[in-house]
Amino acid sequence: MTVKAVNHIAIVTEDLAAALRFWRDALGLPLDHTAEVAAEEVKVAVLPAGASAVELLEPAAAGSGVARYLAKRGPGLHHICLEVEDIEATLARLAAHGVQLIDETPRTGDDGKRYAFVHPKSAGGVLVELYQLPR
Amino acid sequence: MTVKAVNHIAIVTEDLAAALRFWRDALGLPLDHTAEVAAEEVKVAVLPAGASAVELLEPAAAGSGVARYLAKRGPGLHHICLEVEDIEATLARLAAHGVQLIDETPRTGDDGKRYAFVHPKSAGGVLVELYQLPR
Repeated sequence: MTVKAVNHIAIVTEDLAAALRFWRDALGLPLDHTAEVAAEEVKVAVLPAGASAVELLEPAAAGSGVARYLAKRGPGLHHICLEVEDIEATLARLAAHGVQLIDETPRTGDDGKRYAFVHPKSAGGVLVELYQLPR
Repeated sequence: MTVKAVNHIAIVTEDLAAALRFWRDALGLPLDHTAEVAAEEVKVAVLPAGASAVELLEPAAAGSGVARYLAKRGPGLHHICLEVEDIEATLARLAAHGVQLIDETPRTGDDGKRYAFVHPKSAGGVLVELYQLPR
């Protein structure tokens, strides 16, 4: 199968500390780590949930993609990230089905993972991120 | 830990057949089954993704909760469902933290699972469903 796992579910918030009071303190998810991702102008908190994770995103700069999303849609679900076996094969398969891609070739993160976004227009309004993790 | 897994991610669509062309045909998720859930006035398609699943929802009646959501927000991510060990303990813990619940006591599905919804006002704009599966 192409898709191996739901790697994470990303949620946009205006206030990471307030979001942690629900997801960590009230619901009991463990906080794995927080980080600031300069390339995306975002502060992130990662909370594992079984084989997947909840990823909380707070804009780190006005005008960033996540800040614009928050202004337009309000806080809530932002995207889902699916881990695939072979990201280039998956992108080729999607393109062959006429799916519009935000990233036609994968980007590479600091940690070696390769990732790409599918355009929500082609995914029923859902922003879908694909990951291929390093072996 | 309270939360065992992300049971599913629910996505609202106007057209289940069109949504399946992306999630099943292009992305390659297997279709486990489709069903009509009379109590929720919704048609459902369940596509496993690793230990979790993508659940596509099409309103089966005008005026249903999902139809109203679709009219207001458009197609896209609808809710996430977390599987917990003990749903009553989880609901009590949430209430003790001042979290607003849609269901203060769990409902029971045809298949014996117990479920409840947390109000998105208390969960940063995210509709959160909790499941406790039968043993």
